[in-house]
Formats: sequence, C-alpha cells, structure tokens
Amino acid sequence: MIDYYDISGCYILRPWSYSIWEHIRNYLSKELKKLGIKDGYFPIFVSKSALEREKAHIADFAPEVAWVTHSGGSELAEHIAVRPTSETAMYPAYARWIQSHRDLPYRLNQWNNVVRWEFKQPQPFLRTREFLWQEGHTAFRTIEEADEEVLQILELYAYIYEELLAIPVIKGRKTEKEKFAGADYTTTVEAYVPASGRGIQGATSHHLGQNFSKMFEIVYDDPDTQEKKYVYQNSWGITTRTIGVMILVHGDDRGLVLPPRVADVQAIVVPCGITASSTPEERKALMDSCKQLVDDLVKGGIRAEGDYRDNYSPGWKFNHWELKGVPIRVELGPKDMSRGEVVAVRRVNGDKRTIKREAVATELSALLEQTHTEMFEKAIKERDARLSLVNKWEDFVAALEQKHILLAPFCGDIPCEDRIKGDSAKTDDDPTAEVKGPAMGAKSLCIPFKQPRDLTKEDRCIHPACNNKPKFITLFGRSY
Amino acid sequence: MIDYYDISGCYILRPWSYSIWEHIRNYLSKELKKLGIKDGYFPIFVSKSALEREKAHIADFAPEVAWVTHSGGSELAEHIAVRPTSETAMYPAYARWIQSHRDLPYRLNQWNNVVRWEFKQPQPFLRTREFLWQEGHTAFRTIEEADEEVLQILELYAYIYEELLAIPVIKGRKTEKEKFAGADYTTTVEAYVPASGRGIQGATSHHLGQNFSKMFEIVYDDPDTQEKKYVYQNSWGITTRTIGVMILVHGDDRGLVLPPRVADVQAIVVPCGITASSTPEERKALMDSCKQLVDDLVKGGIRAEGDYRDNYSPGWKFNHWELKGVPIRVELGPKDMSRGEVVAVRRVNGDKRTIKREAVATELSALLEQTHTEMFEKAIKERDARLSLVNKWEDFVAALEQKHILLAPFCGDIPCEDRIKGDSAKTDDDPTAEVKGPAMGAKSLCIPFKQPRDLTKEDRCIHPACNNKPKFITLFGRSY
Repeated sequence: MIDYYDISGCYILRPWSYSIWEHIRNYLSKELKKLGIKDGYFPIFVSKSALEREKAHIADFAPEVAWVTHSGGSELAEHIAVRPTSETAMYPAYARWIQSHRDLPYRLNQWNNVVRWEFKQPQPFLRTREFLWQEGHTAFRTIEEADEEVLQILELYAYIYEELLAIPVIKGRKTEKEKFAGADYTTTVEAYVPASGRGIQGATSHHLGQNFSKMFEIVYDDPDTQEKKYVYQNSWGITTRTIGVMILVHGDDRGLVLPPRVADVQAIVVPCGITASSTPEERKALMDSCKQLVDDLVKGGIRAEGDYRDNYSPGWKFNHWELKGVPIRVELGPKDMSRGEVVAVRRVNGDKRTIKREAVATELSALLEQTHTEMFEKAIKERDARLSLVNKWEDFVAALEQKHILLAPFCGDIPCEDRIKGDSAKTDDDPTAEVKGPAMGAKSLCIPFKQPRDLTKEDRCIHPACNNKPKFITLFGRSY
Repeated sequence: MIDYYDISGCYILRPWSYSIWEHIRNYLSKELKKLGIKDGYFPIFVSKSALEREKAHIADFAPEVAWVTHSGGSELAEHIAVRPTSETAMYPAYARWIQSHRDLPYRLNQWNNVVRWEFKQPQPFLRTREFLWQEGHTAFRTIEEADEEVLQILELYAYIYEELLAIPVIKGRKTEKEKFAGADYTTTVEAYVPASGRGIQGATSHHLGQNFSKMFEIVYDDPDTQEKKYVYQNSWGITTRTIGVMILVHGDDRGLVLPPRVADVQAIVVPCGITASSTPEERKALMDSCKQLVDDLVKGGIRAEGDYRDNYSPGWKFNHWELKGVPIRVELGPKDMSRGEVVAVRRVNGDKRTIKREAVATELSALLEQTHTEMFEKAIKERDARLSLVNKWEDFVAALEQKHILLAPFCGDIPCEDRIKGDSAKTDDDPTAEVKGPAMGAKSLCIPFKQPRDLTKEDRCIHPACNNKPKFITLFGRSY
C-alpha cells in the first residue's frame, strides 16, 4: 500500500492504495458536480499576510506550517507558507469574485495536497506531513443555506465510509475544544477501530459563520437593504486518511481486507492443477480458459485480473493476493474445467464455494455485494460491542481500559474536557500503545446528532469535579 | 480562466480552465491505464541528497528549486526541496522495488503539482512557478522497449493537442542543447502561435538511458548472464501549459474560442424575445421550452447549459458567452418555438443557422465535430503559411522577422546553436515582446521526425560561421 520515504512523515502511495483514493475521488467528484459545485485549483503557496489574517485559524496552524525561504541559492524577500489548508489562499479571491447576491451561492472545490509539519509520531495515512484531500469552500447569503450544505456534504462523507469502505460512522458535531480553528462549528463522521479500541475522525464539514468573511471582506450588496453584507461560509474536506481507516478497521493478521466496492481488483483468477506431467497443450488450454474467465468477469462488470506468472506456485499466489486483500480468489484447474465449474474463495472469511462456470459473473457480483454487507455488519457489531453509554466516571475509566468508546453526559466546556482527557490517561505504560502518557486520555470524538437518550434533571457532567449542567451526550474515546 | 494571486508567478485556475485540464486528464488517464501504467503518488518534498545525486539533472534545476527551511518557528535540521520534477524522489524507491527481470517493465504515473521558481517574467499557464501535470516514470530491461514507449506516449500527447485541442503539432527530437537535464534524448510536440509568430513546446517524452539507474543503483538480475544489469528508463509529462497554448492558438480579439471536445459547456441556450409586454405565461412557456431543449441536448450527448438569469439581456449574455468561448450559442424565442426551430450561432466564425427543433441534438453534434475539424484545419493553414524551409542565413533572419518558424539544416552542436540564437536576436526592441534582447533570438524547437527533405552534399549548417556538416533539418523559431 505504501512505502517509506527518506523524509520523516512522508510516505509513498503505491498504486494499490492510490487506486482506492481514485475510487473515492471518482464517486465524490461526480456527487459534488451534481450539487453544482465546480472544481478549480489554487496555488500551494500562501503569503504570510493572507495566512495570518484570521487569528484563531493561524493560532492553530502556525506551529505546523512549512515555510519556503529560499529559491536556488538566494533568500526570498518574503517567506512563503506551504498551504496547511486553503481558506486563507482562497478567500482574498472570493472577496473579488463575490459582489452581488446573484454571485451566491458560490461553491468551489479543489483536489490537492496539503502540508502540516506535525511533530507527533507520524503514522502512514493517519498522520502524515503531506496528504491528499479535497477541500470545498462555499459562500452563502443565509446561514440556513450554509447549515443545510454542511450536512449535505457530511452525508456524502458518511456514504463514502459506509457504502464504499464498509465502515460504520457516527455523525455529530465537534465540541468547542475540537472544532476547526476559525469555524463556528464543525461536523464530523467518526469511526471506531476494534483492534486498538480507539475512535478515529473520518472527515469534517465546517460552518465558518462570518469569521473569515469579516477578515477577508467577502461582502455582497443586499438588494433588500442596499447594504453590504458578509457572506456565510463553509469548508469541508476528506483525505487519504480514509485509506488508513479502511486498513485498520478491516485488516486482519493475514493482511489487508479490501471492501469490494473500492477494490481495484475484485476477483483474481489463479490457474491451478498444473503438474510436472502436464503437457504443453494442457497448460495452454488452462491459460486460455482462465483468460476467457477474466474476460467474462470483466464483461459482467467485475474488476477481475488473472495471475498468469509461471514462476510462482498457486499456493504462493494465494498468499500473495490474500495479503493484498483481494475480495475473491477464483481457482480454475483442469478438473474444474471438465466439470464446468470454478472455485471461489472469499478473503473476508475463507468461505469456499463451487460455482457453475456459466453463471460465474452473476454469482460473483452477488457475492461481492454480500461481502460488502457482511463486512459492514461485522464492523457495526464490533463497534457496538464496545460502545458504552455511561453516567459515572468510574464506569467511564473502566470501559476506556476495555477499549470502549463512551457516550457520556458532558457540559461542553473546554477546561472540563481537558480534565477528562488528563484524568482518564493511563499512568502505567501500555506496551502496545505508540503514544504514551496523558495523550492516551479520552478525547471527545463528537456530540452525536442522534442522541442515545434524553438528558434528565439528575444527569451530571461525566467529570466528577465538574459542577456544570451537562448539555448533551458526547462520544469520547482514545483517538488517533 | 485564471485570476491573479498575491505571490508572483502563481495563478488561480478557475473552473472554466480547470475543467479543460480535467478533460485532458480523463482522456490521458484512461489511455495510460490501457497501456498498463498505474497511478501512484510520491511526496512533494525531496531530500537534498536524493535531489543532487544525478549531476547533469541537478545542475539544470538547482537555480529554480524552492527550499523549505522552517516549520513553525524553528529551522529544520536538513533543508528540503519542493519537487521541480520527481525523478530524484522516485528512483530511490525504484531501486528497492525492482529486483528481478520479472519486475520489468515497471511503469508508474502520477498527477501532481511541481514548483520551479523561475526568474523570467511569469506568464499565466505558460511560465508559472507552480503548475499541474502528470509525470510518468518507467523502467525497462531493453533500450528497444524504452524507445518504443517514448514514442507511444508522444503519440498520446500529439493526440491531446490535435484531437482534443484542435492544435497541430510537429513531432520531433530536441537538440542536445534543449534536451531534458539527465536524459539521453528528449522527444517533443511543438505547436505554433500565429499571433506572436512563436513556437511553443507542447509536451515532452524523455529517454533517460541508464543515467539515473546508475546513480540510483536501479538494477535487476539478468537471468541469462546472472549479472546485475542497469535498467533503461523513460520519463514523460504534459502540463497545464496545454490550456495556455489553446488560448493563444484559438483565441481572437473577442476572447476565448474553446475547441468543442474539451469545452465544459459546448452549447449555451439563451432564451430570447421576451419583451416588456410579454405575459408571465409567455415567459414561463419560454423558460420551460429552453429547459426541455437543454435536457434534449444533454440526452443527445452534448454538454449543454441554459442561461436563465433574468437580470441580463440576451445581448449581454451573447457577449458573455462569446468572451468565454462557448462553441455554440443556441437562441430560442417565442417565434422560434412556434416555428419549431432554434437558431444556432458558432463562436468560431459567427456562422448562424436555423435548425429544426426535433433534429437539434443530432445537428449540433455534427456541428461541434465540424467546428473541431475547421478549427484544426485553420490552425494548420495559419502555421503552414509561416513555416519556411530555408537554407541561407539571410532568409532565416528575414523570415524570423516575419513571424515564421524555420526549417533549416543544422549541425546540432551546442555552441553553434548558441550563436544562432544570439545572432538572430533583434537588436532594436520590439515593443510587443515581453522578453527583450537576446532571448528573442531563434531557439531550436525540434528536429522533426518527418524531415522535409533529404540533406545533400551541398548543404551547410545554417549559421554562416559554422563549418560543420549539417546533421538534420531542424525547426527553429522564437519561443515561449
């Protein structure tokens, strides 16, 4: 999927992982176009003055910004930032482009790379200093239109996780502590990784209010009042982290398990049953039959390939494609040929079945769909088994140690959230954790839109020292 | 198409131009996949040690490299280059990935952004400090396979220019002076811009020989000799410059003229004939009819939109879409409706015709194809009128002043090419030229594969002071 690179925090996306990103991109690109959102491209460089205009925004990003200071051998007159995100690159142009209410809504998206020079331990896909994403930036006349779009986009992100990657997500709003720097509010889709017991942010869709439009003077003439009004803005993005979440959620100890809808190879055909005593004619007949099978599968709408390499045994190939996570392996040998059958083996559970040769495309299509559903249901089951609704701090801490994510009443205050994180951190080192100490305390993941229950008068904020009224049930967990 | 940006040499690609890039990308991506070339993604950053490994390569790129030296407030231990191209980023990985002859050919492509901090006057699309492109990097066992691919890719680039952008190109090889730094040879497609009389490089496909494989130790075990052998490599790329060439070649004094096959809007429907005395019912009937027309065109495979804005007159809209270069404007008014007709006006020549409503999708499809052909033929005609075969230096200089590009016998030597450039530069300043002085001398554009004539014993190199035998007929011209 990836390979290491000689710059820390940077990784190479090999075709096997990049193709998954392409599937996601193709889907989302089509959906965004349907919504009337167009693609453009802004420069990777941001001037210091533009970058620093929105104070809350730059305060958060400043420590991670990579600066270009030299070209060739000479120093630049003004140092230039590599975009960590493009609000500040784009909005000076929005201020020029948006003049009349007729220019609204203004909706633009770009597919690009961004750089965040983080100092935490890098992790392939999850925390990388450069990553690929799309970032949408939109402007509206009314807050209602903006609010509506925030959720429209979040639904698309949820669809990518659930319907393409077979990963269940919980939709909700970020707490004040965790929201995007410069946003009025942030919505998110949050997934769960059974192996580590941690939550993971999937993608976010922000409502920026008028925070940026005031700083960048993005105004239109209001036809009703003849006054200049500030626009309401959103920004939203999904990144190559998706691939990492997919690996973590579905992978097993034999390697990757690719969800069928994003697998670049959905079915791999492996010729079998050739022995030292096979004649050249027998070999040729088998290869021809395998190629015909691949053709039939491709015609039937399945992304199929054949592994015809003659220097590897079928057993070696089984392992190879298992490691790579191909959803279905199709075995075809002389005996299967004579019976008019093939053997299909599913990666997800090793389930093996014989299929009539003439029905193979139809049967495998159905099997791929079934596989998607089963993977999704398995992931739901695993998550729900570790999703606890707790009301008491002791239960919160105990369940956290059991690799649970936790729904708990919470007041929403930043200092209280800091205490929850600090006080739920394990003091004795967990040898399996790559992040030690207080960082392993519980963070808020989101305030789920679908609250698991109503709050009552008796409810208290989950932190024992907190005297505030809880405002909502919030999802907490160790996180990435 | 673009907007300016507060960092010199960087521009914003607005959706109207980005969509052209998407058409090119979609086409090429599909074709590369057919050739078995897969997409991946390498980091934007290159370590100093990797960047500087191939000496000829770095000598050429060093002055233009942008360096990241700081993150947040602190200086990085090692300064990091922003890729000007990715040979040096990719080939250390190739050295790991390629071990056996069975790993060959190895063929990878990536779509990304690169940065070249040029100090020449920047020009939108043509000379920008960041641009988008694809770069393919491939490795072969034999030079023959590599040579074959160089041309295969060049054909795809020629197709993009000729069949998508309606721009004729001359295919050939670059001279020693103009070849890619680190390549054994560079092939190119070269276009001609009638308005400026200059040639322009369209895209290049390089054979790198074993220059990089020796520096990066990219070797495989040769099964015949049991020895380690260096691979033969190619690299090739096409950039967003394509859009600039398209604008220059086809634009006229009324704005853009988009070639139909890459126009995101091929036909714009404008409701006409509504007057102050029209009833609301008449307005509604017209709008409904226009929307139905757009639907029918879209169903017929035409990228069509309607301009339903009520605050602009039809005349204003005609100008607007003319400026934007939409190939066909379709006018529909109440009278046309009652006659069962529409009026189609072509951007390229103002040609106006009445079309039966029921045949509109078929007729417009044919008209779009015809438009492509006519634009291509016009561009050929304009180029050929200024493409001169010369044998004498006086004719060379005189034709250059007449905005010609020139085919001339040439010895191929770098010092001789330097002299040709210097001695053909105009000494009196051309007020229309943005590049003054010696830079306006003639550069070699390419050595055309299709030589216009055989060389004879009498031929001399075009530069009067040169005593070398000419090796080939070379295309020269002022350039971008």
